Amino acid sequence: MIKAAIYGASGYTGQELLRILLRHGGVEVTAATSRRYAGRPVADLYPAFTGQTDLLFEEASPDQIAARCDVVFLALPHEVSMAVAGAFLERGVKVVDLSADFRLRDETVYERWYAPHTAREYLQEAVYGLTELYRDAVRKARLVANPGCYPTSVILGLAPLLRMKWIDPDSIIADSKSGVSGAGREPVVNSLFCEVDEAFKAYKVGQHRHTPEIEQELGALAGTKVTVSFTPHLLPLSRGILSTIYATLREEVTTADALALYESFYRNETFIRVYKEGAFPNVSSVRGSNFCDIGLTVDGRTGRVIVVSVIDNLIKGASGQAVQNMNLMCGLPEDEGLRMMPLYP
Amino acid sequence: MIKAAIYGASGYTGQELLRILLRHGGVEVTAATSRRYAGRPVADLYPAFTGQTDLLFEEASPDQIAARCDVVFLALPHEVSMAVAGAFLERGVKVVDLSADFRLRDETVYERWYAPHTAREYLQEAVYGLTELYRDAVRKARLVANPGCYPTSVILGLAPLLRMKWIDPDSIIADSKSGVSGAGREPVVNSLFCEVDEAFKAYKVGQHRHTPEIEQELGALAGTKVTVSFTPHLLPLSRGILSTIYATLREEVTTADALALYESFYRNETFIRVYKEGAFPNVSSVRGSNFCDIGLTVDGRTGRVIVVSVIDNLIKGASGQAVQNMNLMCGLPEDEGLRMMPLYP
Amino acid sequence: MIKAAIYGASGYTGQELLRILLRHGGVEVTAATSRRYAGRPVADLYPAFTGQTDLLFEEASPDQIAARCDVVFLALPHEVSMAVAGAFLERGVKVVDLSADFRLRDETVYERWYAPHTAREYLQEAVYGLTELYRDAVRKARLVANPGCYPTSVILGLAPLLRMKWIDPDSIIADSKSGVSGAGREPVVNSLFCEVDEAFKAYKVGQHRHTPEIEQELGALAGTKVTVSFTPHLLPLSRGILSTIYATLREEVTTADALALYESFYRNETFIRVYKEGAFPNVSSVRGSNFCDIGLTVDGRTGRVIVVSVIDNLIKGASGQAVQNMNLMCGLPEDEGLRMMPLYP
Amino acid sequence: MIKAAIYGASGYTGQELLRILLRHGGVEVTAATSRRYAGRPVADLYPAFTGQTDLLFEEASPDQIAARCDVVFLALPHEVSMAVAGAFLERGVKVVDLSADFRLRDETVYERWYAPHTAREYLQEAVYGLTELYRDAVRKARLVANPGCYPTSVILGLAPLLRMKWIDPDSIIADSKSGVSGAGREPVVNSLFCEVDEAFKAYKVGQHRHTPEIEQELGALAGTKVTVSFTPHLLPLSRGILSTIYATLREEVTTADALALYESFYRNETFIRVYKEGAFPNVSSVRGSNFCDIGLTVDGRTGRVIVVSVIDNLIKGASGQAVQNMNLMCGLPEDEGLRMMPLYP
Repeated sequence: MIKAAIYGASGYTGQELLRILLRHGGVEVTAATSRRYAGRPVADLYPAFTGQTDLLFEEASPDQIAARCDVVFLALPHEVSMAVAGAFLERGVKVVDLSADFRLRDETVYERWYAPHTAREYLQEAVYGLTELYRDAVRKARLVANPGCYPTSVILGLAPLLRMKWIDPDSIIADSKSGVSGAGREPVVNSLFCEVDEAFKAYKVGQHRHTPEIEQELGALAGTKVTVSFTPHLLPLSRGILSTIYATLREEVTTADALALYESFYRNETFIRVYKEGAFPNVSSVRGSNFCDIGLTVDGRTGRVIVVSVIDNLIKGASGQAVQNMNLMCGLPEDEGLRMMPLYP
Repeated sequence: MIKAAIYGASGYTGQELLRILLRHGGVEVTAATSRRYAGRPVADLYPAFTGQTDLLFEEASPDQIAARCDVVFLALPHEVSMAVAGAFLERGVKVVDLSADFRLRDETVYERWYAPHTAREYLQEAVYGLTELYRDAVRKARLVANPGCYPTSVILGLAPLLRMKWIDPDSIIADSKSGVSGAGREPVVNSLFCEVDEAFKAYKVGQHRHTPEIEQELGALAGTKVTVSFTPHLLPLSRGILSTIYATLREEVTTADALALYESFYRNETFIRVYKEGAFPNVSSVRGSNFCDIGLTVDGRTGRVIVVSVIDNLIKGASGQAVQNMNLMCGLPEDEGLRMMPLYP
Repeated sequence: MIKAAIYGASGYTGQELLRILLRHGGVEVTAATSRRYAGRPVADLYPAFTGQTDLLFEEASPDQIAARCDVVFLALPHEVSMAVAGAFLERGVKVVDLSADFRLRDETVYERWYAPHTAREYLQEAVYGLTELYRDAVRKARLVANPGCYPTSVILGLAPLLRMKWIDPDSIIADSKSGVSGAGREPVVNSLFCEVDEAFKAYKVGQHRHTPEIEQELGALAGTKVTVSFTPHLLPLSRGILSTIYATLREEVTTADALALYESFYRNETFIRVYKEGAFPNVSSVRGSNFCDIGLTVDGRTGRVIVVSVIDNLIKGASGQAVQNMNLMCGLPEDEGLRMMPLYP
Repeated sequence: MIKAAIYGASGYTGQELLRILLRHGGVEVTAATSRRYAGRPVADLYPAFTGQTDLLFEEASPDQIAARCDVVFLALPHEVSMAVAGAFLERGVKVVDLSADFRLRDETVYERWYAPHTAREYLQEAVYGLTELYRDAVRKARLVANPGCYPTSVILGLAPLLRMKWIDPDSIIADSKSGVSGAGREPVVNSLFCEVDEAFKAYKVGQHRHTPEIEQELGALAGTKVTVSFTPHLLPLSRGILSTIYATLREEVTTADALALYESFYRNETFIRVYKEGAFPNVSSVRGSNFCDIGLTVDGRTGRVIVVSVIDNLIKGASGQAVQNMNLMCGLPEDEGLRMMPLYP
């Protein structure tokens, strides 16, 4: 059994990791840390875990945790992750970092959007963990930068078109909508039920920090610099991201052509489901699962392709993909622990 | 007192009309028809009306209702409206039609998207009732085609930019999200709570019937043919539409310039509220009111302007705007009956 | 025009007061205080108010505010209200207190459930502002203790039966369910969207502070000591309380008898709506209004009466009732500013 | 592998059965019937199943299906189930019936609340499938009447107290609240999103058909006739039932005593989780799982015990318990296919 620890386990991504790992056939969870809730049973904070684990949240240094695990998930805010990742790596512990700290290969870009980078020595070896695109590198990685939730939906939604150069890379608009769990469990007014319920808004228009991450990866796929309009919105639901992506076609292709391309591109992927012509995915069809569902249409009137992709932001957009990466890093079957069906309704 | 009737009063827009008119200082509601619920008190179907009105739904012909009113609201499905509008007009009754039947000036466009038109003789005199843009014509009209909910949000969101020719008319993408009440009260699986709750999807991608209506009005504003990408989505909430609109700028303008333009364009409008730089509206800020709130930003990175506009789809997107038009047609203050504050939270 | 101030205006009850008063024909709002948001326009915090008022939140002492108003609403936490009420009363300002501080006539009861009472000198003159039961006293009061939201629903639901002594006062069980706005706008984990959405729980079982308030008023109606089982629950919606109340009948009465009693008891009440036999109210039928809707049945199998009463917790359960009381205290029509229809759906 | 069929598979309980069985280690699903959707792939109706099964809904007689399975789940409306159950039983197929048709042992009670019974010959052998209470009988049964959702929550919530005769059997009040999926997928106005969202109501007060089922089983536990007040309510959420149950104590016991009794009574139960003193369960803590969580308190002030029990109505309240019963009937581990963690948030 692989020994896994969760460093920063009290938030929604932390508890989702634990939820998945407690039913994972190849992993034993040896520690779950939380400074705020140190000493309390996990089930105190999350009664859904009642009777399922005896784990207590604990406060412990990276060194202490490193001694007790083969792989660690860092479910920490950015800037905090990069402060602790090194301690694990130096002790031979594999790291899956769910923060943004190692996602941007160009540190100057990171510093423009985030903060000064304090662990540059690991930036080059960090593998961007969009598993479907970087599978071989993930297998060999000791540090995986788990992708952001929005980028996962947008990049998977566009990868085949960009790789084939069928679309104009300057025409991309990603209009994304996310459930509230993406904002985490911090008690802030903007995440209160009464503020979100029966409400819907755009936020950080033209300014969201996932923009450079999306552009880095779309650029890598296109083989050229890509600038996108990315607008995040907040949905009145807990789990799910839907991205509606618009791009101008450079080729005369039909919807059937584009779908055939996607079918082929994602042929061997367990977690990508391409819809038939005329069908578009709903976030409710992937809730509770690691799937990314994609539908698209070519609109002859405007010369654009419109792609709709959905994920569960806490699973394929965070903890599920993190486990998918861990499975590869540890030589386990890629879908181990991730075979759960979506929960509907 | 103006005598008003609601023809087809049992749906959500019908009851919303009644709700507004029962508190309207210049109008008396003389009839509310419904074939299905004929003979039943309004409060039986909508207990919110308990004690507020003695009206019964009745089944009655247009002729019978025409004899009892000065103005009629047709809250009917398309195709049904055009079959009855003439009977009212011929008897001198002013008509506000909430269906799509008289919105498209070109009957061939109507027939391509809807069905054969059976009341072409009224098409040319029908005034498109987006009040802020057609106020003078509405005042003189005897037949107003009340705008669709999505078009209201998109057209008000773009009018200043198109009138000034600041944007490329071929670059427009309207990504719109609507609450479920827009689908009406018909019992269909797609509108069930369990299908909509915790769910979000795009629908009729590239095919929604509001597309030609949007293009007609944007074209009129631009003075040239406009083709848009319009994608509607279904939000898990009852009331509200938010449209996120993207367009490529032809002029070098700043966000401040654009906002100044909007402030000026909508200077005398009671129901349009332009937000300050950096602020974007939430559907929850207009719920229960006739307001249309607008925010925007100019994104220098991509050369695009991004406009966000919100309305309550049942009020400014339907029944409120219908009353706003009726007020003008009947010589009443434009905001009579429409001064209600948004309900928040 | 009456000059009204809101002391503690930044929470949900404060903004609801402001929403009502801005459309009130006999009142001018002269001040809205908030320490945290001092200096900021109301519309910054609540964009729904955009263009409707120029008021800024201000930090000001009771003395300063007292000089600028005839009546003040204290929308403060308990313990804070009693610290400032005297300053207003001494300057001749009428006070409607929305906290619990002056609701319990017996200070020892207050101190057992809350905290030491620091303004006992006002306890005896404070009038419990359940308007329908204390109308005459409210008219003459200078200090009104506005009822709690749960007590309003329970007391109005049982008043006729207790006054007639038709039920066993020891048999009362009130199972109440409230929307989240009752918890206010404080950013706490328990009020986060992800914690409340798709969730439902009982809380403070057997321990909620509204219990003594309910017992005091039910006892006054019954003319004897009453002990109740009161269980509050948290609904995944913003506005609304529904109380399902069970009691054992001492008389052989039918549902028709009981409804006739309620009809008679509430005959002249604008804001109480008694439903017909077989009909029970939904919180959605009073949302956005000052109504309390009541349905009931006599269950012959068990010898119990079951009463269901609903209110909008922010309106009849707080700010609406506060304005209803202010109207009486100031000689205005009781329903002034409160004639709004429920918003449905 | 056990061959299982779902007769009537297109509703929410049908698809939930399929969801569970597709991940069940000991079962192969050989047929899923639906008259309305015959010929269509399951994933057409429920896109969550995309790529997970090739099953088509089919229209087939009981005889045809019986030839292809060892066990059948009847996910049919009452009256329809009893018309087909015999055909399966006669062909040696084990039957788990999710309707009410075989739950009431006394056919006259069935006929008073439902309709004439047309399969009385099977009534006496049918085993009431509340697994925790009838485990041994279920193992040997060839016809299991799977319990109703409300009764499951109420009976599990009271069983220890009634078995011990600690409460007065005439004092029981069950105030229950259910999510909307309990109403099934039929397109009716009352289940529309706009009718349920931001809404809450009691329904069928004193008249719900689960009343005699609850009374039959509570009576069996108490060893005497039991009459209850049972009030169902409709929650604005998809999954979950919470029952708040009140009863008068006949013994002087503490909360600790009562919890010790429950801990002991449910000691070996995988799916029953008893909470610690002061803790009460939330429906969100069991969503997506087969757990029934229970909390309680003894209220010295009123002499009552208050029990709160929660289940996922589609799982422990329907399809999960059905699989639990099937496991026993077929000699499989009781929790096979049912080890899923709750999905939170």
